[in-house]
Amino acid sequence: MEYEFKALGKDMSAPSKDLETFPTPANVKLVSFTSDEVTSHCPVTGQPDFNTVEIEYAPDQKCVESKSLKLYLWTFRDEQIFGEGLAGTIAQDIFDALEPFYCKVTLEQGIRGGMQMSAVAEVVRDEA
Amino acid sequence: MEYEFKALGKDMSAPSKDLETFPTPANVKLVSFTSDEVTSHCPVTGQPDFNTVEIEYAPDQKCVESKSLKLYLWTFRDEQIFGEGLAGTIAQDIFDALEPFYCKVTLEQGIRGGMQMSAVAEVVRDEA
Amino acid sequence: MEYEFKALGKDMSAPSKDLETFPTPANVKLVSFTSDEVTSHCPVTGQPDFNTVEIEYAPDQKCVESKSLKLYLWTFRDEQIFGEGLAGTIAQDIFDALEPFYCKVTLEQGIRGGMQMSAVAEVVRDEA
Amino acid sequence: MEYEFKALGKDMSAPSKDLETFPTPANVKLVSFTSDEVTSHCPVTGQPDFNTVEIEYAPDQKCVESKSLKLYLWTFRDEQIFGEGLAGTIAQDIFDALEPFYCKVTLEQGIRGGMQMSAVAEVVRDEA
Amino acid sequence: MEYEFKALGKDMSAPSKDLETFPTPANVKLVSFTSDEVTSHCPVTGQPDFNTVEIEYAPDQKCVESKSLKLYLWTFRDEQIFGEGLAGTIAQDIFDALEPFYCKVTLEQGIRGGMQMSAVAEVVRDEA
Amino acid sequence: MEYEFKALGKDMSAPSKDLETFPTPANVKLVSFTSDEVTSHCPVTGQPDFNTVEIEYAPDQKCVESKSLKLYLWTFRDEQIFGEGLAGTIAQDIFDALEPFYCKVTLEQGIRGGMQMSAVAEVVRDEA
Amino acid sequence: MEYEFKALGKDMSAPSKDLETFPTPANVKLVSFTSDEVTSHCPVTGQPDFNTVEIEYAPDQKCVESKSLKLYLWTFRDEQIFGEGLAGTIAQDIFDALEPFYCKVTLEQGIRGGMQMSAVAEVVRDEA
Amino acid sequence: MEYEFKALGKDMSAPSKDLETFPTPANVKLVSFTSDEVTSHCPVTGQPDFNTVEIEYAPDQKCVESKSLKLYLWTFRDEQIFGEGLAGTIAQDIFDALEPFYCKVTLEQGIRGGMQMSAVAEVVRDEA
Amino acid sequence: MEYEFKALGKDMSAPSKDLETFPTPANVKLVSFTSDEVTSHCPVTGQPDFNTVEIEYAPDQKCVESKSLKLYLWTFRDEQIFGEGLAGTIAQDIFDALEPFYCKVTLEQGIRGGMQMSAVAEVVRDEA
Amino acid sequence: MEYEFKALGKDMSAPSKDLETFPTPANVKLVSFTSDEVTSHCPVTGQPDFNTVEIEYAPDQKCVESKSLKLYLWTFRDEQIFGEGLAGTIAQDIFDALEPFYCKVTLEQGIRGGMQMSAVAEVVRDEA
Repeated sequence: MEYEFKALGKDMSAPSKDLETFPTPANVKLVSFTSDEVTSHCPVTGQPDFNTVEIEYAPDQKCVESKSLKLYLWTFRDEQIFGEGLAGTIAQDIFDALEPFYCKVTLEQGIRGGMQMSAVAEVVRDEA
Repeated sequence: MEYEFKALGKDMSAPSKDLETFPTPANVKLVSFTSDEVTSHCPVTGQPDFNTVEIEYAPDQKCVESKSLKLYLWTFRDEQIFGEGLAGTIAQDIFDALEPFYCKVTLEQGIRGGMQMSAVAEVVRDEA
Repeated sequence: MEYEFKALGKDMSAPSKDLETFPTPANVKLVSFTSDEVTSHCPVTGQPDFNTVEIEYAPDQKCVESKSLKLYLWTFRDEQIFGEGLAGTIAQDIFDALEPFYCKVTLEQGIRGGMQMSAVAEVVRDEA
Repeated sequence: MEYEFKALGKDMSAPSKDLETFPTPANVKLVSFTSDEVTSHCPVTGQPDFNTVEIEYAPDQKCVESKSLKLYLWTFRDEQIFGEGLAGTIAQDIFDALEPFYCKVTLEQGIRGGMQMSAVAEVVRDEA
Repeated sequence: MEYEFKALGKDMSAPSKDLETFPTPANVKLVSFTSDEVTSHCPVTGQPDFNTVEIEYAPDQKCVESKSLKLYLWTFRDEQIFGEGLAGTIAQDIFDALEPFYCKVTLEQGIRGGMQMSAVAEVVRDEA
Repeated sequence: MEYEFKALGKDMSAPSKDLETFPTPANVKLVSFTSDEVTSHCPVTGQPDFNTVEIEYAPDQKCVESKSLKLYLWTFRDEQIFGEGLAGTIAQDIFDALEPFYCKVTLEQGIRGGMQMSAVAEVVRDEA
Repeated sequence: MEYEFKALGKDMSAPSKDLETFPTPANVKLVSFTSDEVTSHCPVTGQPDFNTVEIEYAPDQKCVESKSLKLYLWTFRDEQIFGEGLAGTIAQDIFDALEPFYCKVTLEQGIRGGMQMSAVAEVVRDEA
Repeated sequence: MEYEFKALGKDMSAPSKDLETFPTPANVKLVSFTSDEVTSHCPVTGQPDFNTVEIEYAPDQKCVESKSLKLYLWTFRDEQIFGEGLAGTIAQDIFDALEPFYCKVTLEQGIRGGMQMSAVAEVVRDEA
Repeated sequence: MEYEFKALGKDMSAPSKDLETFPTPANVKLVSFTSDEVTSHCPVTGQPDFNTVEIEYAPDQKCVESKSLKLYLWTFRDEQIFGEGLAGTIAQDIFDALEPFYCKVTLEQGIRGGMQMSAVAEVVRDEA
Repeated sequence: MEYEFKALGKDMSAPSKDLETFPTPANVKLVSFTSDEVTSHCPVTGQPDFNTVEIEYAPDQKCVESKSLKLYLWTFRDEQIFGEGLAGTIAQDIFDALEPFYCKVTLEQGIRGGMQMSAVAEVVRDEA
């Protein structure tokens, strides 16, 4: 198996919205990534939010390359966005880049005010 | 994304039944909040009850803002109510404020008399 | 919400088969109680058995009051009964007292002879 | 409830294939036993295997008495049998003794060569 | 039960693609193996990847012998392959060797860049 | 052993600073109580704080009766006090009531602003 | 190693204060037993208390036989005693029966009123 | 107890090196804060590091106010610093602000390259 | 590093009291082995006991080879011995074979009669 | 803080015995690294061993750079060495590179033959 990834030559110290892909290997039905290192800023208070994000997709032709996914998640570090919106945005971006059968994103925020919020966003291919 | 929340100017040291909302971001299918800091009083003995509450809803147009939810949950601190009734009341109030597809509340009480009680309340939109 | 419970005046130091109830609050779909303090005696050896019991029911008009449930579970302390039978008996008694849509009892015994037994008993309302 | 078990007079220091039963108490739908003390020998190397076994059945007329089950499981201590075969044999013997609606046995072997094997065997009553 | 395994005479210090089998014992419906000792190399960076692999299959005529499975998993130690591809390859090889009703492989990679990847590959018998 | 406790006749629905004691039984060297149901209010924001408190003491002549301890801990429910101060106050009150060899109080606050505070207070008998 | 235990002929369905011993095997420095099946009654309310008890001793000439210890712990099932007193009594009885270098008993009560009590009792041989 | 904190009027959406204090309450011997929301940047790769930080100090006259501590920890979000250096810097800043008997900082980094780093820094008052 | 172990040619399907050793590598101060697969028989009831054994030693010139240790532990499978005696015997045998600075054996039995026993045996080199 | 690391320009896909260092930051007393991705080969069977390694040192002038440590640990991937020897070798190499006050290495092997081995190696600076 041989690939040529931009990731190899790329500046790994800069966030990037660019999601690289590789051809889905035979038999693969489901792929997921979990990271507890996704931060953003609360639009109400401006303070940093710490999130655990699980991205799950059923690949068709393309799988996402993990290093470019890391740089992508890093891009939210200075954005002001609710956790609910962050889940919805990631789901859409993954869906646009991979064109999978579906993509589901589950986000859990760090505890705030004694409460833990979680949100589920999903984009499903329109089979019509 | 820009919102103007009353929460920002509001007295954060006072409980309030007022639930604020914001427009549901694209792709979001499910939101939940869990808090282990919801207290009330037992109607039989008058003693404080300590509850863990999970609120789950499938949003339509509106999501609940988390700080106003915290102030809302605080309002039960001096009420006399069974855990079963507390679950049912929260489910109804969230349903009325957000008009979601459904709202489910799961409440677990602290151990009393060697027993732990949990109750599930649910309000589902009438599709008729 | 106002109730008048016999439990308030009752002798809390005596086991009792009498299960008190209160009207089911709005929206409540499921209630469960878990206790790891239910003991009985093995009919084969006469020795004490230690059980964890979970009682789950879907309430119709009535919910069980927790203190009377505690006194009820206490009544098995000196009975000789298999764990399987204990689960079945509790399920029937709860069903008779509350007339719920269904009642399910899951019992786990303490480890005996290197084995842990669990039994599930269920009584479902006859809709015919 | 009164039973007369051979187990009471029986030599508890000898393994035995004889499974005793008692009449299923009312309302009981499911019974399971878990033991992490079931050993046998590997047919390839001859070395002892250590297994955790869960036996689950939906009783019809008969439930298995736990002490006789313990003595039964002990009988495999010196047999040479794969874990897969052990699961299948226990499921058949329980099925033959109790004539339940079904019997399912899940066996997990101790880690060997950095791998943990588990096997599920099931015997279902032929309703034809 | 008597088998004659090449494993007994075989050089256990060498990886091998050769999967040995034995006849499925009666009643066995599902078998799984879990190992956290499966390594390979990342095709992007060349660095070693550490994976936990769960192989689950519904056996028809044949079950896999565990020692030969261990030697098989060892063969990936020096290959350059994505985790997604590794899952897909193992699923196909097990399927080809055992001809089960289905074979499912779940692979979890060690944490890389603050993310944990998991992939599910499945090969199902074509019943047409 | 016979005691006469005010707790028996006392109004159990009212907080009380009054700590009851009983004579230390022979051989007892250390007693501790842990509760995760101790609440107070933050002096900066006025919002409720949720604390887990462990009280440990080396008894001399007196041990604390547990029901009166519960009513005592309840008295902080409406006080404005830092967690550090709450730990110090409980330690002093227990020390004054029991005159033990020492009393140590460890308090853990619920997570606030992504941080969990814990404080240790101790009062040791002056042996001079 | 040959012993003749009364336990073998004894009625195993009756509690007994009689602790049997056997000669300490060579090199043994510390022995402990943990049971979460020790119950008694609260002297204040008369209700059953559920305790986890750990007995630790440094044996000199004698070790305690485990079946007789089980029957001994059973004797508290109908006694009215505080947890603190129960720990102290067990420590003294073990000390008297075994004459060890020391005996330490740690008792944890089931949660009552949102609190968990634990007590440590110790008897140390007087070396004077 | 009455304090006047700048925190109340302060802009809570901006990081700040300014650590506020309050007078140590009686009997308090040890205070600690744990946060898993402390981020910085790796000086080698420039990528974000995620750290769990525990700050422990033995207070003399002053305790740190928790909101100002949160804003302080936030200031490292855009700094390039090794985890070892971050631990050392926090320990020194806390020591300078509170003049405690000692201050100890334990930092655990998120897993990088399959490894987890932890560092302990300590500043102890010079008693000479 | 080259060794010639009898283990290589030895019949691995037979228990053996023979403990093989190899020269202690530089800097090694402590070695331990933990196994939850050590069985024996109870001298009172004759039934199998299941034990978890931890062997810890401070090596001087010799370390124990792990395969021979496994065959050694297997030898107790059909012996009648109390857990306390088993701990003491293993400690002595390891001490005799390795002549370490000390050897400590901690044995935990499977739960019997609702109790778990553990025993610690130790042999320390006589420095006189 | 500015450093110039060879790691930045170095081929990250090749193992290397070369340990890079940086000057110890102020106040740092203890540093540790834990990795569960250290493999080697058993000198008896030639099969791969999987180890969890914790390296702890008290730094004097130098700390180890984490990327070079990762490449260092990778070098054992094809070596034949006992776990005990691996612990001792790593401890010596770290000691030689950093000249710390002491270096301690704790290694836990994956389960083999139902046993888990762990070894502790330590090198302490000779203060004579």
